[in-house]
Amino acid sequence: MILYGRNAVLEALRGRRAKSIGEVWATQATAREPWLRGVRVHASSATDIERHCGSSAHQGVCAQAGGYPYVSADELLLAGPEPLVVVLDEVQDPQNLGSICRTAECAGCSGVAIPERRADEVTPAACKASAGAVEHLRIARVRNVADFLEQARAAGCWCYGASAESAERARNSRSPRSAESAASACGGRNDGTPARAPIPYDAPDYRGAGVVLVLGSEGRGLRPRVAKACDELIALPLRGRVESLGVSAAAAAILYEILQQRGGDT
Amino acid sequence: MILYGRNAVLEALRGRRAKSIGEVWATQATAREPWLRGVRVHASSATDIERHCGSSAHQGVCAQAGGYPYVSADELLLAGPEPLVVVLDEVQDPQNLGSICRTAECAGCSGVAIPERRADEVTPAACKASAGAVEHLRIARVRNVADFLEQARAAGCWCYGASAESAERARNSRSPRSAESAASACGGRNDGTPARAPIPYDAPDYRGAGVVLVLGSEGRGLRPRVAKACDELIALPLRGRVESLGVSAAAAAILYEILQQRGGDT
Repeated sequence: MILYGRNAVLEALRGRRAKSIGEVWATQATAREPWLRGVRVHASSATDIERHCGSSAHQGVCAQAGGYPYVSADELLLAGPEPLVVVLDEVQDPQNLGSICRTAECAGCSGVAIPERRADEVTPAACKASAGAVEHLRIARVRNVADFLEQARAAGCWCYGASAESAERARNSRSPRSAESAASACGGRNDGTPARAPIPYDAPDYRGAGVVLVLGSEGRGLRPRVAKACDELIALPLRGRVESLGVSAAAAAILYEILQQRGGDT
Repeated sequence: MILYGRNAVLEALRGRRAKSIGEVWATQATAREPWLRGVRVHASSATDIERHCGSSAHQGVCAQAGGYPYVSADELLLAGPEPLVVVLDEVQDPQNLGSICRTAECAGCSGVAIPERRADEVTPAACKASAGAVEHLRIARVRNVADFLEQARAAGCWCYGASAESAERARNSRSPRSAESAASACGGRNDGTPARAPIPYDAPDYRGAGVVLVLGSEGRGLRPRVAKACDELIALPLRGRVESLGVSAAAAAILYEILQQRGGDT
């Protein structure tokens, strides 16, 4: 694929697929920038670069790269004793995908899982929208999101689905990590009972075990089978008149809450 | 201006400038959607709608509307006893502007201040990117951001600038709301001393007074004069290899921390 944009190419040159980078094309001005020092660059016109990468948003540089180096689902779940994994259930817009990957990388997530369908690929547009963060992040494609959540739970993770619904209705709900629900959970979580109401996003205790955060598409939210496979649904409080946060804003608020609980800044 | 996109038009019809809405054009399919019931709509082809609004992202609907109804800076600062105001210092990308406005509206902010320059206008693209949230949010244009911060401080607000820098360097810094610094602050805040290092974003106590959160442009961050006019610089922890969060992700993480401290979900 042809990557484009300054940060996308910069991070690709120092990221997980650095060895796969082939030809690099840059305008004369961009080729003089310090980060391209030592890189063999074909001086090209902006028009030629746009023709190579098929986008006018190239910022004067594009590069040939191998396909995106996906990892296996296992690799996400085995990354450290308390992995933090983001699962995107039908988040297909490359802006949202890229933006969430950037936040996940900044928050030190173990990785991101996306469904194994063509629409959800890590495209050059998503690479650019992530400011190159995908080059350092582990991303796995999973055949079936609900099955992946089962696998994660078998590996000891707790799965939280971010509901598009406001947390207001459920503000007095219990945390799934409280003593009672932990006890009932041992007897078999998600045993066919209907989906619970969401609890506030800051109610769970995110420490002491792996955490999987599942985010649904804007508009439709989580699919029922995916919501059912979660241990708990969580929601952010909404104080305004519009009905939901953007999915990438929700990701940022929740991931930083998790990071904070886990001692991200102490 | 011609607004376009489903949520942008929907929220405009029920928001602060509802009375200014004139002609509405929609495709036959969109015109049948429940939210347009009772609205006089010109049935149009997608091509005609694109010609009216100048964008292919119209989702089958566009509407004539009056100019964006900006409020005065005073109105932002006098909105309740403990206003929460977001200031965007040179955040010009309509996607970021719209996305931050959406988050601000969801978090119940008093309003948003943007510089009084053509590039920072609330354009139809920003309205769409906000999912229509700007129609319910108070937005003021201010001549000079640093002067607005002085005005906010005179009105009793604390001004926090979100630094692009990681909080890691400064993790043991004191909060400006701690007893000692509050005492020194009484003697004169920002008295010409050089800008301080940022403190972790969750170190300040955001309760008990108005809060102004200043966000800078991606890449360059806050301008020095604006940073200097802040009471404190704050930063989110960064655990990855990319150098900064996106500005709209940072806005979401910080605003929800403030909301949480203020009892947003208790």
